[in-house]
Amino acid sequence: MAPGIQAVIAYGAHDLRIESVEPQPLTDEDVEISTVVGSICGSDLHYYHRGGVGDFTIKEPLVLGHEIAGIVQRTGRWVTFVSPGDRVVIDPSVPCGTCVQCQRGRRNLCTDVRFLGSAARMPHSQGGFRERLVVHAAQCVALPDHLSFEDAVFAEPLSVATHAVGRAGPVLGRELLITGAGPIGMLILLVVLRAGAAKVTITDVCEAPLKLARRIGASAAIDVSADADVPEADLAIEASGVAAGLETCVTSVRRGGRVVSVGLLPPGSVPVACNRVVTGEIELVGSFRFTGDEFRAAVGMLSAGLEVSPLLTGRLPLADSLSAFEIAGRREEALKVQIQFPGGALEGSDKVPEHEEFQ
Amino acid sequence: MAPGIQAVIAYGAHDLRIESVEPQPLTDEDVEISTVVGSICGSDLHYYHRGGVGDFTIKEPLVLGHEIAGIVQRTGRWVTFVSPGDRVVIDPSVPCGTCVQCQRGRRNLCTDVRFLGSAARMPHSQGGFRERLVVHAAQCVALPDHLSFEDAVFAEPLSVATHAVGRAGPVLGRELLITGAGPIGMLILLVVLRAGAAKVTITDVCEAPLKLARRIGASAAIDVSADADVPEADLAIEASGVAAGLETCVTSVRRGGRVVSVGLLPPGSVPVACNRVVTGEIELVGSFRFTGDEFRAAVGMLSAGLEVSPLLTGRLPLADSLSAFEIAGRREEALKVQIQFPGGALEGSDKVPEHEEFQ
Amino acid sequence: MAPGIQAVIAYGAHDLRIESVEPQPLTDEDVEISTVVGSICGSDLHYYHRGGVGDFTIKEPLVLGHEIAGIVQRTGRWVTFVSPGDRVVIDPSVPCGTCVQCQRGRRNLCTDVRFLGSAARMPHSQGGFRERLVVHAAQCVALPDHLSFEDAVFAEPLSVATHAVGRAGPVLGRELLITGAGPIGMLILLVVLRAGAAKVTITDVCEAPLKLARRIGASAAIDVSADADVPEADLAIEASGVAAGLETCVTSVRRGGRVVSVGLLPPGSVPVACNRVVTGEIELVGSFRFTGDEFRAAVGMLSAGLEVSPLLTGRLPLADSLSAFEIAGRREEALKVQIQFPGGALEGSDKVPEHEEFQ
Amino acid sequence: MAPGIQAVIAYGAHDLRIESVEPQPLTDEDVEISTVVGSICGSDLHYYHRGGVGDFTIKEPLVLGHEIAGIVQRTGRWVTFVSPGDRVVIDPSVPCGTCVQCQRGRRNLCTDVRFLGSAARMPHSQGGFRERLVVHAAQCVALPDHLSFEDAVFAEPLSVATHAVGRAGPVLGRELLITGAGPIGMLILLVVLRAGAAKVTITDVCEAPLKLARRIGASAAIDVSADADVPEADLAIEASGVAAGLETCVTSVRRGGRVVSVGLLPPGSVPVACNRVVTGEIELVGSFRFTGDEFRAAVGMLSAGLEVSPLLTGRLPLADSLSAFEIAGRREEALKVQIQFPGGALEGSDKVPEHEEFQ
Repeated sequence: MAPGIQAVIAYGAHDLRIESVEPQPLTDEDVEISTVVGSICGSDLHYYHRGGVGDFTIKEPLVLGHEIAGIVQRTGRWVTFVSPGDRVVIDPSVPCGTCVQCQRGRRNLCTDVRFLGSAARMPHSQGGFRERLVVHAAQCVALPDHLSFEDAVFAEPLSVATHAVGRAGPVLGRELLITGAGPIGMLILLVVLRAGAAKVTITDVCEAPLKLARRIGASAAIDVSADADVPEADLAIEASGVAAGLETCVTSVRRGGRVVSVGLLPPGSVPVACNRVVTGEIELVGSFRFTGDEFRAAVGMLSAGLEVSPLLTGRLPLADSLSAFEIAGRREEALKVQIQFPGGALEGSDKVPEHEEFQ
Repeated sequence: MAPGIQAVIAYGAHDLRIESVEPQPLTDEDVEISTVVGSICGSDLHYYHRGGVGDFTIKEPLVLGHEIAGIVQRTGRWVTFVSPGDRVVIDPSVPCGTCVQCQRGRRNLCTDVRFLGSAARMPHSQGGFRERLVVHAAQCVALPDHLSFEDAVFAEPLSVATHAVGRAGPVLGRELLITGAGPIGMLILLVVLRAGAAKVTITDVCEAPLKLARRIGASAAIDVSADADVPEADLAIEASGVAAGLETCVTSVRRGGRVVSVGLLPPGSVPVACNRVVTGEIELVGSFRFTGDEFRAAVGMLSAGLEVSPLLTGRLPLADSLSAFEIAGRREEALKVQIQFPGGALEGSDKVPEHEEFQ
Repeated sequence: MAPGIQAVIAYGAHDLRIESVEPQPLTDEDVEISTVVGSICGSDLHYYHRGGVGDFTIKEPLVLGHEIAGIVQRTGRWVTFVSPGDRVVIDPSVPCGTCVQCQRGRRNLCTDVRFLGSAARMPHSQGGFRERLVVHAAQCVALPDHLSFEDAVFAEPLSVATHAVGRAGPVLGRELLITGAGPIGMLILLVVLRAGAAKVTITDVCEAPLKLARRIGASAAIDVSADADVPEADLAIEASGVAAGLETCVTSVRRGGRVVSVGLLPPGSVPVACNRVVTGEIELVGSFRFTGDEFRAAVGMLSAGLEVSPLLTGRLPLADSLSAFEIAGRREEALKVQIQFPGGALEGSDKVPEHEEFQ
Repeated sequence: MAPGIQAVIAYGAHDLRIESVEPQPLTDEDVEISTVVGSICGSDLHYYHRGGVGDFTIKEPLVLGHEIAGIVQRTGRWVTFVSPGDRVVIDPSVPCGTCVQCQRGRRNLCTDVRFLGSAARMPHSQGGFRERLVVHAAQCVALPDHLSFEDAVFAEPLSVATHAVGRAGPVLGRELLITGAGPIGMLILLVVLRAGAAKVTITDVCEAPLKLARRIGASAAIDVSADADVPEADLAIEASGVAAGLETCVTSVRRGGRVVSVGLLPPGSVPVACNRVVTGEIELVGSFRFTGDEFRAAVGMLSAGLEVSPLLTGRLPLADSLSAFEIAGRREEALKVQIQFPGGALEGSDKVPEHEEFQ
């Protein structure tokens, strides 16, 4: 690696480079952190594999990454609630606070949001897979001593999961279906079990994550590549990002039920059995990101001991980021893969081997 | 016509017959009415034109009709709250009261409902286009003297409209889109104007109903066969029953908005722009029929003077029912067409000519 | 005891008698059960101690009891889904199905409900503490073999608890306060722990139930007779039935929070800090009984292993019912006390001694 | 009046002074306006008459006023969307944007809000009854040419009304009760009529505003000093600020109904019939201020022609502010009284005489 601040930059499909970037200016309300762990999200993988995610496409080089934990190095002069040396996890979202969505309290729908590592708008919002990162102080959430960086960095996808479960409504005593046993589907599984679901079915087309889902507590984990017989559910959450997953949700949910769609789908339209929606008054609702209080609540759940470590299947040093992306894309081998940055002293870094298959 | 009780019976697509039927037994809780007015609904037209509606198909002869008003002739011995001679409008729905949907208070989703004139289940639930009709006493809602039969019979489609608006959430000060200017779309227009919508756009592919919509108070009435430029809306209600209508709703509604789908669509699936649903947290929800209290509230709105008569474009005697169905299907000429039954003395029957084009 | 069907009848405050009653007629849709276990509810105790509960007063002799499990003996000829010999628990509520509340789906608010053992209306609705009891077939919920009568009979108060928690809204990750550690407060504690509450504080003025609450999993169990320092909460549920409990809830809940009042209070008005309600937009909502689907879901939760047995502190034979009521009223000694009926063979009846203090 | 910027300052109960104040600094994001109209709110009157409102008390001199319209004079260098000369109405609220309430989207409950003319916190948040006023640019909403200052300044109390109605839930076809026919009660009346309420009853102890309420469209306007027979309602909104009003709401609302409490009450607790709340599952919810999008929607409703001018009963020049406060406090004579500032050219200023009794 060249000298300077190293970052993981996507230039387009299958064009990922580790390059030096410029330091970012530090305003009075900002904080500079040295990144310790960055975790690869499904959207990072989509940027890598096809140069875009959902309907967004990379139009200029984009530093990837929005699941970031690190150590505070410097703070702007108006920053009071974090100090150099603090261990923090980063809320990747800075809503504008003034658009109509923000005023209505739908901050996750802000039309002018800055979100780490996103090509949703031009210029792109650069991401956090870089050794030094400047964020607004309000994006930092301090970690209790007992919460490791590698667990804390789950706060971001966990917030996506709790937000989606919140969109589904009360879960206690209900029967749930989750389509897609990737990291988000798996975190949703953990959350709905914690929220008292009576029965949780999860589906996928890979056996390895389904096996893990059973171990975590799924009532049933069904390989729909072989067997399409999915039981009825009161609520369904689509987390596979493929049209067939949404179809399974709409056809499996009972009358009066709700389908939450959290996984971004391929560009274009998806066929939906709309007469079922009409005659059963089914509610098909989108779920997008999360709000700041949900992120803080997710840190709280992790601090209280929510067991996410089974989802972590590998961690590689920054220099091997391309391998990390390759491995993370192999669904029979990997679930969640993290990048370890050299600048941050990572406690327990020997806990997870570089690359470990599902047990 | 042959002697006996005459009824309008669908045997399949384009096979509608006026035939004698047997009298229905009168149990202790039942009421027999002589039908005065029956109004033709879009679903009746679908049964006539293609032998089914939504995913339901006629499998045995089906007396059509579920928009019915008449005069009580006989009452079972336990019936107390209506008496012979009472003018009534009929709630076409009898939910079972014991299924899980009924227990949850979703009576319109009852899995064991009897609904006049529906092929949803076998045996079909026979309808109300017959000279004498037996219903459960609880289906009868008495009319105040000043409310005519021809207005009162709008209670049924008006309930469909108020239920759909209820599914959309608060309307006051919001901008709305309605796709489809048929009878249901037009009643929804009346309802959302009454509920304080700031701006209401309605779309269709026929000019005649759009012209009427402008007269009723639509802010804009757009012919989407010519011009697809539909303005943004906070809430959208799909009442056209075609896939393009749903697409217009999903693409026109703002982030955080809601789309209510009330019109049954052709069998099969419909393409939906699901990434918009996800990233905008759009809520696509079905709306099916209505509950008993909504039906009674609709009678109340009509009694209080809600002006529905502009929607009535024709009324023909029972013997000309086939013509009535033909006329009702010509969208440039007709909106709502009623059938007048011979046994009921209909006040103001000269008010509407047999067939009148849109003014 | 005299021959005939023995029942526990309240004639007024402190006037409880065990007397013979007439058999009840069995209509075509009814079921006769031999009662195995009846469990004493707080409202039964109020009838016993002061001749009324909330604003209702005993005006004629009232067979008490609405927490009932037993064995089907005879069924009416239209009854299909239970058979003689079936082990069942009884849903005490029969809503009318036709009033405006039932039509709106608020069946628990039915203005014409029959509810076992209630003086809410005249004539009183007679209860289930009787050896033979006739109920409507739809009131019977069959028990799986592994669910004991003594656990199953918790379905009724558990439904009260789940309904109250449902009225509070989503619980996952929230901080809760429960005032009152009687049977309902304790079941609410079990339910909110199961639903993923982050932190649950419970208050009472007796040490014994607080000790049990700590054992069950309360984050804090506070004796407010000694120490009024109650922590803030997002949601509060008042289950003590005293004005001070409601005051604690309203003053402890955060802005935007919700207070659910489930415990009936003494007759008359209660002081509420309404400016807190206004400026914090606090929501103070009542919770009354439950719906049929909630009762069935409660049986499901018990079948799935929800651990209610620690709440059971005593069981006495029918002949000793007066002692059972006396014991049940001593809060330092007893929590939930059951009556064992002689006609029903009760498996595991030696599991709970006649009267056992809190461990 | 002395030279300098004149302001209306409350020093305590019955101690209101017109005095010079210092100019306010103009930061880069601020706007300075010359005030044209200030309208006296009920809370201003409470500060004047008893030195406080609700549980808040004046502890230091407080410039009153938060209903303000004026003309932009100067703008900070980052301000783009208003310019000198623009006619604007002021949103009095600046939420912090970072507290947990703001993050949850409950900006009106912000724990760190600055709100013009409020003693809720120390130091007090100074108000807008001053000739020159500096606000954040985002507080300014530009007025269309056809909307007069005197109508536009109703945007603030109208937002309070629409927020309260929003807290009540859907209004279409429901029966409503409003207690208190002051300016807020009267605006709520206008709003619920616009939202399609089936029947609206309003109560007060003064005849003059009740007479106006009847003229505006109330179904019934009842003097509860003489006649306490208030009809049942589905929803009730307490806008009188006295305990008796809340009692009327709680006892008049039907089972399953909702009571919205918007009027701040005298300090301390208020008796509530809580057993009615419990057994009827009544929802008693507070309503506090409004959000920014509601303020903009209120300007939209005024622009679209909502007729508020009948509520305006007087306008006096700044020099006569004490008289204006005196008059505004006489409920048989005045409803809404405005202060006209000398620096602003007020179109149509001859429209309202200085002081006019109810017509």
